Amino acid sequence: MNNISIEKASQLLKQNDDILILCHRSPDGDTLGSGYGLYYALTSIGKRCRVECSDEITKKFQFITLDYNPQEFEEQFIVAVDIADTQLLGSKTEIYKDKVDLCIDHHPSNTGYSKYTLLEPHSAATTEVIKLVIEAMGVDITESIANCLYLGMCTDTGCFKYSNTSPRTHRFAAELMEKGADYADINRVMFDTKTKAQIAVEKLAMDTLEFFYGDRCAVMVLTNEMMEKSGATSDDTEALASLPRQIEGIEVGVLLKQRLEEGKPEGYKISVRTSLYVDASQLCADFGGGGHKRAGGCFIEGDYEYAKQQMVTRIGNFLQESTQL
Amino acid sequence: MNNISIEKASQLLKQNDDILILCHRSPDGDTLGSGYGLYYALTSIGKRCRVECSDEITKKFQFITLDYNPQEFEEQFIVAVDIADTQLLGSKTEIYKDKVDLCIDHHPSNTGYSKYTLLEPHSAATTEVIKLVIEAMGVDITESIANCLYLGMCTDTGCFKYSNTSPRTHRFAAELMEKGADYADINRVMFDTKTKAQIAVEKLAMDTLEFFYGDRCAVMVLTNEMMEKSGATSDDTEALASLPRQIEGIEVGVLLKQRLEEGKPEGYKISVRTSLYVDASQLCADFGGGGHKRAGGCFIEGDYEYAKQQMVTRIGNFLQESTQL
Repeated sequence: MNNISIEKASQLLKQNDDILILCHRSPDGDTLGSGYGLYYALTSIGKRCRVECSDEITKKFQFITLDYNPQEFEEQFIVAVDIADTQLLGSKTEIYKDKVDLCIDHHPSNTGYSKYTLLEPHSAATTEVIKLVIEAMGVDITESIANCLYLGMCTDTGCFKYSNTSPRTHRFAAELMEKGADYADINRVMFDTKTKAQIAVEKLAMDTLEFFYGDRCAVMVLTNEMMEKSGATSDDTEALASLPRQIEGIEVGVLLKQRLEEGKPEGYKISVRTSLYVDASQLCADFGGGGHKRAGGCFIEGDYEYAKQQMVTRIGNFLQESTQL
Repeated sequence: MNNISIEKASQLLKQNDDILILCHRSPDGDTLGSGYGLYYALTSIGKRCRVECSDEITKKFQFITLDYNPQEFEEQFIVAVDIADTQLLGSKTEIYKDKVDLCIDHHPSNTGYSKYTLLEPHSAATTEVIKLVIEAMGVDITESIANCLYLGMCTDTGCFKYSNTSPRTHRFAAELMEKGADYADINRVMFDTKTKAQIAVEKLAMDTLEFFYGDRCAVMVLTNEMMEKSGATSDDTEALASLPRQIEGIEVGVLLKQRLEEGKPEGYKISVRTSLYVDASQLCADFGGGGHKRAGGCFIEGDYEYAKQQMVTRIGNFLQESTQL
């Protein structure tokens, strides 16, 4: 991995033009906040710039594209933001996997696929790093940029709740509020807004809760049928992954989300959340996935009973190890 | 109201001894964080000190009393923290209502009942003010104090989510983290932990959701029967008040909680949460209650249909006014 400094990254961005910024598939607040925050900063100093992502931006994040006015050009410099691995480029993986010039990221699992990598694994969000880069470029943080950077920080920390939050995260949030970040509105939309369909789908999923290992592990399933019955969209199910872990005493909470597409074998997209001891990214790595210490994900092909059994058995091993510590 | 400065309040505390600190009834994170934070600060400089509250401290807040070691003494100086009105002293109202020497608070509705009042209505939490007072006293912020002060800030702001959060709140949180505040654990217990009974009672209550005024108002009821059926305690129902307002498009969310005690007429304790326009404290004031702009409470005597009708009618007036603005 060719690790570079904040200063060097800001120089590279200033020296280049016609910049393409890539966000990861199933885009979240941090990759979008990073991508669009950098876009607004670069266009403010006259660069031509564009943001691309393999998947659509869900409704709740669309406010950050309000001032987005992309230009057509042949890209001369490619930046990937919050992307640990080229697989996360989704349908754009084949096109760009060997062409990324600069990757700005905070995932310790970053594979170093880009020509230059600015990796700050202790940052709660990639937008923390983007903020430092923008400042090193000498660019003023406008209200639009502040909204983008705040969005990444609040979404990746559960609104400053999780252990990845640092004093610096809080101080950056304070600065962004002073630059005009619309924090109360952003937080209401991110954390305090549920659709009626979301309430309905949560009730259906919560009826499937199963407990293992003396109520230290909780498993919940979300099926295609529940999605249809409730009328929920993928937006409506984002918060579901955190629910099982929130039950008192639970160390490992699991959501299995059914994939039942025509022409593909049945499988389950699995989200894992842990409280204190179990390393979620290690647990998911055993099934070809990854993530952070307290949140990870993977995919298991097979029917529900098989996928659940695989995951629950492996969790048993981890719980036993953590108890022996 | 005899308003005094941070400096004057810290002098009063330093000049006095045998100090009784009062927290408000149904104690929350801010009144307890303020009371125990001040207790730890005062005892660290050799004062005799004690904290009193009319109601028990619920389980989730009990961690802040771990180092509490109260002494018996005849109080010479009485401090009320986070208490806007003497009625909030609960069963201790008659004993102390005319005897409070110093009140430290952040509620704009403070009635000025104490000899001296240190009121900072722009503080997100009373613990923000307590922090300034402790620092003005020249007392070091220990880990115990940091936990108390952080607790008040995170609970009164919904973990830095709500509009009352200021850049200063974030900067104070950063400092308290550096002083050892166990923020991730505190937040997990405050915001990310549900008991099984809580999940059960939430499902029962959510089945009662009713919508009014083109889905701009949502009303939910919590009955004694639901409490019994789910085995929920009052701890388990705290988060319920926020649920109706969280539904997309809702401006006013209402929870009616049944009071059905032997020897007392039926009535409903009403919690109101608003999104953007309606002043919850004004709305509740019409029924003898109060609160903040976005969160208020009151009590209406009568059966469910009557209490709901009263509240919904009044909300209609407020919604009409806010639409005309």
